[in-house]
Order: sequence, then C-alpha cells, then structure tokens
Amino acid sequence: MDFDEYRTRGKIMIDYIADYLETIRERRVYPNVHPGYLRNLTPDCAPVEPESWDHIMDDVENIIMPGITHWQSPQMHAYFPALNSFPSLLGDMLADAINCLGFTWASSPACTELEILVMNWLGKMIGLPEAFLHTHNESKGGGVIQTTSSEATFVCLLAARTQAIRRIQETNPELEDVEINSRLVAYCSDQAHSSVEKAGLIGLVKMRFIESDDSLSLRGAQVMEAIAIDKKQNLIPFFLCATLGTTGACAFDKLEELGPICHAEDMWFHVDAAYAGTAFICPEFRHWLSGVAYADSIAFNPSKWMMVHFDCTAMWVKNSECLHRTFNVDPLYLQHENSGLAIDYMHWQIPLSKRFRALKLWFVIRCFGIKGLQKHIRAGVQLANKFELLVLNDKRFEIPAARHLGLVVFRLRGENHLTERLLKRLNSKGRIHCVPASLKGKYVIRFTVTSQYTTISDITRDWAEIKATATEIINDDKADSTYNKSKVSLAGKFRI
Amino acid sequence: MDFDEYRTRGKIMIDYIADYLETIRERRVYPNVHPGYLRNLTPDCAPVEPESWDHIMDDVENIIMPGITHWQSPQMHAYFPALNSFPSLLGDMLADAINCLGFTWASSPACTELEILVMNWLGKMIGLPEAFLHTHNESKGGGVIQTTSSEATFVCLLAARTQAIRRIQETNPELEDVEINSRLVAYCSDQAHSSVEKAGLIGLVKMRFIESDDSLSLRGAQVMEAIAIDKKQNLIPFFLCATLGTTGACAFDKLEELGPICHAEDMWFHVDAAYAGTAFICPEFRHWLSGVAYADSIAFNPSKWMMVHFDCTAMWVKNSECLHRTFNVDPLYLQHENSGLAIDYMHWQIPLSKRFRALKLWFVIRCFGIKGLQKHIRAGVQLANKFELLVLNDKRFEIPAARHLGLVVFRLRGENHLTERLLKRLNSKGRIHCVPASLKGKYVIRFTVTSQYTTISDITRDWAEIKATATEIINDDKADSTYNKSKVSLAGKFRI
Repeated sequence: MDFDEYRTRGKIMIDYIADYLETIRERRVYPNVHPGYLRNLTPDCAPVEPESWDHIMDDVENIIMPGITHWQSPQMHAYFPALNSFPSLLGDMLADAINCLGFTWASSPACTELEILVMNWLGKMIGLPEAFLHTHNESKGGGVIQTTSSEATFVCLLAARTQAIRRIQETNPELEDVEINSRLVAYCSDQAHSSVEKAGLIGLVKMRFIESDDSLSLRGAQVMEAIAIDKKQNLIPFFLCATLGTTGACAFDKLEELGPICHAEDMWFHVDAAYAGTAFICPEFRHWLSGVAYADSIAFNPSKWMMVHFDCTAMWVKNSECLHRTFNVDPLYLQHENSGLAIDYMHWQIPLSKRFRALKLWFVIRCFGIKGLQKHIRAGVQLANKFELLVLNDKRFEIPAARHLGLVVFRLRGENHLTERLLKRLNSKGRIHCVPASLKGKYVIRFTVTSQYTTISDITRDWAEIKATATEIINDDKADSTYNKSKVSLAGKFRI
Repeated sequence: MDFDEYRTRGKIMIDYIADYLETIRERRVYPNVHPGYLRNLTPDCAPVEPESWDHIMDDVENIIMPGITHWQSPQMHAYFPALNSFPSLLGDMLADAINCLGFTWASSPACTELEILVMNWLGKMIGLPEAFLHTHNESKGGGVIQTTSSEATFVCLLAARTQAIRRIQETNPELEDVEINSRLVAYCSDQAHSSVEKAGLIGLVKMRFIESDDSLSLRGAQVMEAIAIDKKQNLIPFFLCATLGTTGACAFDKLEELGPICHAEDMWFHVDAAYAGTAFICPEFRHWLSGVAYADSIAFNPSKWMMVHFDCTAMWVKNSECLHRTFNVDPLYLQHENSGLAIDYMHWQIPLSKRFRALKLWFVIRCFGIKGLQKHIRAGVQLANKFELLVLNDKRFEIPAARHLGLVVFRLRGENHLTERLLKRLNSKGRIHCVPASLKGKYVIRFTVTSQYTTISDITRDWAEIKATATEIINDDKADSTYNKSKVSLAGKFRI
C-alpha cells in the first residue's frame, strides 16, 4: 500500500468507523458465536501473496464483527465502561504514525515531557495533593501512564516490597531479600479486584482479604485486627491496597481510617480508583478521596469512563525513587546525555518500552475541557439514577447494595438461581449485556451505564427488556416447580 | 466533536499522517531540545472550556514535533527498528474504534479467536515446531500477544518459577514457596537485554550473566560450568534465557548446545528473539533457530522489524498450563458460559485486560503476504551489507563484531573516547541518530537499518555524514593532543 492508497483507504476507514459507531445500536451487543467459530471461516496458513484490501475489509464485516462484544454500544452494561471518543481516536492515530518508544527521555523527548504535563493536569483535575505532582523543586512526586490498573497495583506492590526489604535490612543487615520477602504480608478488602490477588501471587507475598463492612467498605478496625494477628506471627505488614469504586458494587474503602494505620505501621498505602477516579473531575464526588493525602500511590483508568480508549492507566506516586530502586537497570545503549537530569520512564514501569499515550489523553482533555468531561460524568450518573428508580418501582426486584456513580446492582428477590437464569437469558438474547457479581453470597446483576451516547430511551428500553425477560424466567420457574412438585407427588405415589 | 466533525477531521488527519511520513527526511531525526522544554510552552493546568481543534493541531506541529525522535525516519539508526506500516495503522484505527477488551473469550470472542489464528499463522511463517501452535488435539501449546518482550521474558520466568517450585515440593512438601524461591537461579548471556536482568530483579531470583564467546554467543560449556558451581552451593537452576539477535551486536546464542542442558537439568528454556524473529520469515535465516525444538517458550517483536507498530510481542509456549498455574485468579464477574472450553488470555499474561492487537497483525500479514514481508527483510539486510562495505573501505574504522541481519557495529580505531566523541557529535547534529554499545570493553556505534523506505542513497548520504564528522573529530583530537603535548612540554620546562 503506497501513500496514495493509504490516503484513499484511510478516509474510507474514517467513514467506516463513524458509520460503525453511529449505527452501533443495530448490532447485537453480545455476539452469538461459539468457541472455535473463526477457525472454520479462515485459512490455516498465512497468504503467500498479498491480498486485496477489499477482501480484507469484507472479512472484517463478515467474520470479525459477528464475533465482537460491542463495548461502545449503549446496550453494553457489563464490567465497567471502556470508552473511546473521537479526540482519543485521532490522537492515537497520530501517536501510532509517529510510533516513537518513550523508554528514556532521549528516545523521544516530547513523549516523556507531554506525559509529565498531562499527568500534572490530570492530577490537579481530580484534586490530588501537590505531593503527587511533578514539580521543579526537591519533591519526588509525579505521575506516569501505565498500561493497566493491574500493572499499577503490581508496580506499587513491588516498590513497597523493595522499600520494606531495605528498611528491615537497615536494622538487620544479615537478612537476605528473600528471607524478608517470605515474611511480608499485604492487605486488601474482600471486594478488591482480582488483579490485587494476582499482584500478590506474582510478588510472592501473602495477601489478606479483609472482610468488608455492610456497605462493602474496608474499615480500619478490621485491618488493625488482622495486622495485630500477623505481627504476632512474626510477619511484616508492608502494603495495603484500598479501592475507590469496587468492581462488585462500586463501594468505597475508608481512606481516612486506613491511611493513619498505614502510616503508623510503615506500610505502603496504594489507592486503586480504577473506575471511580474519573468521577473525581467533578468536585461533588471528591468526598470519597478524603484521606488520599496519606496515600503513597494512587491510580485510575482514563481508559474506562474518561473516553480515552484502552490502554491508559494514570498512576501517581509521592516518591518516585522507590520505583527507581525497584526497576533500575541501566545499560549503555539506553544512556544519554541527559540521563539523571530528565525522567526516564523505563524506571517507573515493568516493561522497557512505552507508547506515546500522553497524546490521546492531551487531545481528550483539550477537546472536552474540564467542563465537557464533567458534563459526561454527570450525565452517566443521572442515567444510572434513572435506572435505579425503575428497578425500585418493580417489587419483584431488589437492589442489595447502594447505587454509586454509574453502577446499579440488582437481583430478583429470592434464590440466586432466578437471577442467574435471568442473566443467562438476557445475554443469550444479546440485546443487552451484563455480568454478575457475588456480594456476600448474593448473586447480583451489575448494570453499568457506559456509553456517552446512552439516552434515557436506551435506559427505558433496556429496562423493558429486563422486565420482560424476568417475567419469562419467573413463569418458567413456576412451571418448573409445578412440574417438580408433580414429579415429587408422582414419585411418592409410585415409588419411582 | 460530533460524527460529522470526526469525518472531516479524521480525513485531514489521514493526510497529515501521510504528509508526515512522506516528507520525514526533511525533519531532524534527533531533536534539539533540552529537558523541560515543553513546560515553558504549555499552560500548567488543563483548560476549563473546550479548545478548538485547529489550536490543538497547531500545537502538534509547533511544540510536539520539535521534540520527537523520528523513529520512522530512514536516518533513524538507533536501537532496533520500531516500524509502522499503513495496514498496521489502519488495522489499529479500527481496533481502537471497536475498543473491546479481550481478557476472556466472552469479553469479545473475535479478539481471542483472531489472536489464536494469527499466532498460528505467524508461528508457521517463522518455522516453529508444531508443539508451539494452538491445535484442536491434546496439545497445550499456543501463542499469545504480549505487550513487550520485557513482559514475555518476565512471564516465562514466572511460569518457570512456578513450575520449579511445584516440582521441588513434590519431593519436599515441607518447603514453602519462598524458601524454594530463595534458591532459584537463572542464566543468560552477558549480552542479554536489560529486561532479562529486570525480570530477575522483580522475580526475586538470582541471575547469572555468563560470559559470551568471541562471537558474543552464549555457549553450552560455560553454562554447564556455572550450573555445576551453583548446584554445589545448593542452588536450583530453573531458567535459561537465550537470545537470538542480541541488542549489542545482533549475536546469536547456540540453542543446539543450550537446549539439551536445559532438558537435562529440568530448566525452563526461553528464547528471546525480539529483533531477529522477524527475519525467520525468510528460510535462509532460520539456521539460527536450530535447536528451538528444545525451548519451552519463544518470543519476538513484530513491533520491531515486521512493521506492526508498537506494541505487539508474539510469544509462544509449549505448555500453556504453566501460565495458568502462575496467573490463575478467577472471580465471578469474569466467568462465562464457555470458561474452560475457550482460551481466556487473562491467564496468559500479567495484566487482566488486553487490546485487540491481532487485528493490526492480521492486516499486515494479509496486505504484504509472506512474500512481501520477505522482500522487506531482505532489502534491509542488503542495505546493512552495503553500509558494512562502506565502513570496511575506510581504514580509519573497524567493525569489531560480525554484521548480522540489519545491524552493523563500528568504531574508530584506537581509544574509545574517539568513537564516543564521534557519536556525540553525530547526534548533536541531528541528521542521523545512533546509540552506542559496549562489546567486551570496546565502545561501538550501533547502526541499524530501520525504515522500509530507506534507499541506497540514504545509506551513502548517512555514511558521508559519518565520514565527514569523523574527520572533524580526528582533527580536533590531533589539535587537542598537540595542545596537550605543548602543555606537557611547557609544564616540563616551567614546572607549572
């Protein structure tokens, strides 16, 4: 494909994308395919000769699109949002065309410098204390874009591990890293994301999942209790991960209670605000951030609700030297004249290389402005509130955990299996898509408002779909139980 | 930005990108900016109101572009290639518009299924044994796209660690994970990439950097010796990372010697072919792969030479269960009807989420065809060969390590400082960009042929630039040494 053909094909692709997003409601949000479906539609081996562009694009529509879960659809209510937006798409098109790798400052100065800039903008936008920002003074704080929240949590756990090992070795220089590591213990709520457990597994540290309270929040008293037990067993508490906006029900851990404990115990305090972080652009939601001044690190995903398409995780630390100490390897081929004078982000992350993701973030912030982003968030919360009211108006349903931000959890009253069946039926119809969660033994359906194009009529339409399907399920269940009762009575009579 | 504005702006962006790439030779490949340059050109805080698109795009040209290291330029010879191509850019535009997250099969079936397909295509294209491919039979082999080679190495090291711990616990059930971990030791060459060292640091395992031979290859005898010493100290050898195409000089470790050792010692054998992997699409370069049948895992970067823009690392394993055992956390909100029947790639990687990167890889393979990719690789090798001949024709220079594929290392004869100065001067002029390496104490300049648009005249022009700058450096050095000599003689005379 030469330059001219790219100009032509690229413009057609722009229209294809605009058409796709503009008419997305016409597609099944959840696909109707089975494992292995693609294998039967595609050759086993790569083509030897080049194929025509038209042939490839036909395959996109005919074999790829039918297997896509359409995350940009207003009928997508599963997981959390993973939105794109036009400024984000255009910014990343350009970043991919430049395709510079930002491992050191010198490997593309604008890549590092723009990341510093937008991470400062974003930190201020959500009201972070200045200690988390890049400044020109002696402060060691600053932000970095990581690929995922999983990695942000893991990176902070590793930095905490290094810090704890060094601290212990100051008073016990005879102890080896691995000996200390074997005594380290981390804490999070039973509502924490699976990636926190994964970080502990990979970091080879013990992880305590502390029971959350009735509001599904991690509280200070329970953490103190667990720490006391662990310390009696000669273990070393070193890391606590609090969540703002849990995956199950968007619950919020109490930073103000947890922070002072971490300080007193010399533990690294990480805040995972993957979903809720975007909401803090609106001052009225920042009360949940209260206590963040105690944190050593915080991360959230602009790649969720902020319409910066995946991947983009914003992470801030107060002391970037802890990251350096954890990751610092510095071969000659990566050294440059300004090593030491400028930030080399390779020391802030697990991989060496990084994409120029600051560009799409910069485009989004500038195109929407703070006001535009606030408007988007408030609209999503209002729609979730609308959905909540609809659910509350139908006595067959209950909402077993408070609705926060854009997530409503609901279930059919009674046994879990009814709600399980409801969800399965909804997903098999494919007109709306949700996933479940388990909240203290209760099976719930999570309904997240995702798209910036979702309207009130989308919400009422989706609720009508859920209500109608619930009626089917309840009727089926009645029929089943009549059938089962008759089986039982038959069995009683005839001793089958 | 509404749909109509996106259609307009998007098409202008396509032209901007085509113009950028078509006229890239007119830009300084290496920028002339200093740390903090961007801070002085940009506001401290994000805008409250939306900004106009024209304003943003003006800033791109005026403040971003002057700080970019232009990796797509034919004058970019630093590091390894990180190329894009039009099919790759267009494929990823579409993937970003869809913006599905492929953590489980159900989260977007086409995303997982296309990744399985293209990883099989690619494995066959480079001649991997069938044990690395996804098949429908009992085999546990298969490929996955990781974000970077750093992560591929780390993932394999972690899988190896889990496997070793389990194996030891079979006969010593009383030993805890961390106790065994403290005895694990990994091996690589002194030429291995810094990410191998980083993987060991994070994995808290000892890493031995074995001295390479005169051809900079890791050899069996040296590894056996190191293993014997470690075993005497009650350590447990568990992992060896061989490199095909080292960063310093594109050297190749001897898989045929290393593989049998790993088998005999029950060690995981990982092959890092980050750069050279692409070349194996050409059968004439596959002799370096000889012995790969012994490997447990292999990875290379289509994001380097294969024109699939970053990020995209292709990794294959023979036994995917080892990855599952390492990463498996499985909350309810990620379970689906086909869990267990289909691949959930979240169990194959550190992060939970993944982008739909298979699309750009599929587009590139189909658009170029195997023949088109072979042509691209062979052209790059020929140009490196041309450059090598030019260097050899100037007696002031030497090539201290054999040229393989698209990388030539060279230096001025004599002390290291001459070559150091030459490189510094070249980079400060900004018309070509290279980075150094240290090969057994010799400071060398690495000259990598990168772009698919590089021509013979680019190479001769770049060589002329290097020759002219070398003349300046040598003349300066002569002047300096005359000055120094005169200082010495003066000092001798007057006892200064």
